[in-house]
Amino acid sequence: MLPFKSLISSSQLTPNIIKSIFSATDSMAERIESEGRIDLLDDKVVALLFFEPSSRTMMSFQSAAQRLKAGMVFAQNASSTSFEKGESLEDLIRMVESYADIIVMRHALPGSAKIAADTSAVPFINAGDGGNEHPTQSLIDAYTIYKEKGRLDNLNIVFGFDSLQSRSIHSLSRLLSQYANNRFTFTGPTELFPSPNMLNELHANGVDCEVRSEVRLHDGYDVAYINRLQEERFEDKALFDKHRRRYRLNRDDVEGSECLILDPLPRIDEISTDVDSLPNAVYFKQASYGVPVRMALLGMLLDKL
Amino acid sequence: MLPFKSLISSSQLTPNIIKSIFSATDSMAERIESEGRIDLLDDKVVALLFFEPSSRTMMSFQSAAQRLKAGMVFAQNASSTSFEKGESLEDLIRMVESYADIIVMRHALPGSAKIAADTSAVPFINAGDGGNEHPTQSLIDAYTIYKEKGRLDNLNIVFGFDSLQSRSIHSLSRLLSQYANNRFTFTGPTELFPSPNMLNELHANGVDCEVRSEVRLHDGYDVAYINRLQEERFEDKALFDKHRRRYRLNRDDVEGSECLILDPLPRIDEISTDVDSLPNAVYFKQASYGVPVRMALLGMLLDKL
Amino acid sequence: MLPFKSLISSSQLTPNIIKSIFSATDSMAERIESEGRIDLLDDKVVALLFFEPSSRTMMSFQSAAQRLKAGMVFAQNASSTSFEKGESLEDLIRMVESYADIIVMRHALPGSAKIAADTSAVPFINAGDGGNEHPTQSLIDAYTIYKEKGRLDNLNIVFGFDSLQSRSIHSLSRLLSQYANNRFTFTGPTELFPSPNMLNELHANGVDCEVRSEVRLHDGYDVAYINRLQEERFEDKALFDKHRRRYRLNRDDVEGSECLILDPLPRIDEISTDVDSLPNAVYFKQASYGVPVRMALLGMLLDKL
Repeated sequence: MLPFKSLISSSQLTPNIIKSIFSATDSMAERIESEGRIDLLDDKVVALLFFEPSSRTMMSFQSAAQRLKAGMVFAQNASSTSFEKGESLEDLIRMVESYADIIVMRHALPGSAKIAADTSAVPFINAGDGGNEHPTQSLIDAYTIYKEKGRLDNLNIVFGFDSLQSRSIHSLSRLLSQYANNRFTFTGPTELFPSPNMLNELHANGVDCEVRSEVRLHDGYDVAYINRLQEERFEDKALFDKHRRRYRLNRDDVEGSECLILDPLPRIDEISTDVDSLPNAVYFKQASYGVPVRMALLGMLLDKL
Repeated sequence: MLPFKSLISSSQLTPNIIKSIFSATDSMAERIESEGRIDLLDDKVVALLFFEPSSRTMMSFQSAAQRLKAGMVFAQNASSTSFEKGESLEDLIRMVESYADIIVMRHALPGSAKIAADTSAVPFINAGDGGNEHPTQSLIDAYTIYKEKGRLDNLNIVFGFDSLQSRSIHSLSRLLSQYANNRFTFTGPTELFPSPNMLNELHANGVDCEVRSEVRLHDGYDVAYINRLQEERFEDKALFDKHRRRYRLNRDDVEGSECLILDPLPRIDEISTDVDSLPNAVYFKQASYGVPVRMALLGMLLDKL
Repeated sequence: MLPFKSLISSSQLTPNIIKSIFSATDSMAERIESEGRIDLLDDKVVALLFFEPSSRTMMSFQSAAQRLKAGMVFAQNASSTSFEKGESLEDLIRMVESYADIIVMRHALPGSAKIAADTSAVPFINAGDGGNEHPTQSLIDAYTIYKEKGRLDNLNIVFGFDSLQSRSIHSLSRLLSQYANNRFTFTGPTELFPSPNMLNELHANGVDCEVRSEVRLHDGYDVAYINRLQEERFEDKALFDKHRRRYRLNRDDVEGSECLILDPLPRIDEISTDVDSLPNAVYFKQASYGVPVRMALLGMLLDKL
């Protein structure tokens, strides 16, 4: 049971709520392992509305729904679901709520998730509304740290390499700022350091923050959360290429340290592939946690867990 | 049980057949309510061939199949299923009939449904063949009136606003012309009044018809069936804009009347959103009836109901 | 049980392995007939990654998975799954392997299936990697001959009409060259005769081969395996049109012979539609065998058969 009907924003995720979701996630992960698929949502239908291409999140939600034996309905595809011209999102949701018991939506428009959740008579999960929020990603990131380190507090965390623009970095750092004694170091090109607003917000939450153009993971860091530089956000392609060559984790940077390496993926070249075989490279494990985390959310929002 | 293997046209829907479909629909609606999903088609596979984008009808059929626990196979997507160049529809159907126990198809070509149904060894449902037929829509429209008014005869019905070109208006008015003592009023721009052929056909069936450029819903009308003006059919965009501003139901037009408002959706601006909260605005309920109506059809054509 | 984890190439299909797959296929076909769908993979999830449009193979795999009650996850669609630019196939597979218990992939790049299978922790089936391999098609072709003729040896087989370029002809002829006393006749336009390399390979396997620009099916042939001329491979469209009119089976060519007619479909105009009703036209039956063959493979690779 969750104290809300719909998950729209990471700001809904307090430590108590996170604890209950992670406990349900543990149970889901064990049951996938032992049973493959379970009957929990056998009497439910999940609508997957992906109005923006997103194979990764889409497939992960599909897998979660199928592992729970839920039925699924899809908007036919991203381009054809440029629904009939002129129809409002509200009208669309009022239609889909009668086709399914819960709605998962990705939409390019920031704020669309709130509109949809407010309209919907059935529970709603935001699977990304433009550059705004993607709360299930933050949950997966935090779950990975929790599983691998056993805690979400007392952590020394590096964020890179685009702390200015990365939605994943914004959300995860805010989520982790709720826990005691975390220290954040933001690294990357100077022009991609976090905004003063963001640093102020984190400081206000009591987090010790610093920004550094270079970081050595062997210096006592617990976690490095790495996100690619997003080419589409650079007007100056030469600058992008320069940064891209420099801001890249190599095997030497990681080997022998106790720092976990996370990446929300896709990986372009921010982490060298020879890092993959090191025990602290947990980004594929992180991707795999998407399924039990989303199963837990679907089950809880439908009052089955 | 139905006296035909495939549903191609609204003309197959006699009052007796409609009665048996509605009785099965009532049962499906109750079972969704109490059980969520039922095992009725657990041993069947439904093929959904949507060769034209149609998120609404597509999702409604998916939901119906999933509520019945049927398996589903999809043509991959509307553009890629511009099947291999040069392959005939007959060959395509002869392939798909071995992948599924029933075929649901939408296709841009008028008449394609008949060709497909004649070819197919398994039952077939026409989910729209171009401007020609869309018989499940008419069933849903009629079911909505039946549920809300308790009858399909003795009704005073307004159709608007494009009676010349709307497939939905053509089909529903024909279907309702089979019942006693219905009176039809067609409203909208003069140039979109029904064709003389259509009026003659309805008169020949004993229906009292009139055309009026303006109608007051408070004047004893039971049902208003409103369909948007379709921009793509107007060559003169200025004319379209003029009509669009004028032919639009506002709250004042509806409030206090006993006239049900139906719309096959999507709604563009033919009905003001402040009408939505009135008790006689039933267009979202109408959309929701699509699921149990299509469940009933799938179950009956597969001899399970 | 199969002696490999993944099916990448027809060259893995030895007579013993083929025999065990066909025995499982027979059982699957019987169970579809009697039960519709079976619980065999009720606890498994199948990923269907089709990065190239392929409605036929895609729908057939979907049907196989649904007849086995497996869950399915799809890459959203062929165009949107031009996965995030720059992500490697290896990374993609390492993600998908945590969403599903087996991966089926079609990809335009020759050799991609090997890369994916080598990366994947879960079993993998190649559903076509460019012009390279499409092993499940060869299995279906061979199964059709086996069901209809009762044997895969001692056969007098015609291949047409593009033995130079057809992946299906290459694979099936190689597969059948493992059986005793088969004789192959390649027919079609002279410039589309098989390459000397291929003929040498078949000779080396002990197969008696000949090439002929014209063939009479009544002359003791057991099987004609016909594949369309592929327009996209002809630079000279006039030449294509000339060949297309000439290389076409008509009813007279087939009627009264005991030669089975196979075609991997789609059929363009290489076989006249008036051949369809002859008892030796088995190409639609051949398409239907795709479902039980693929069910058998899914079941065996997941150690359920």
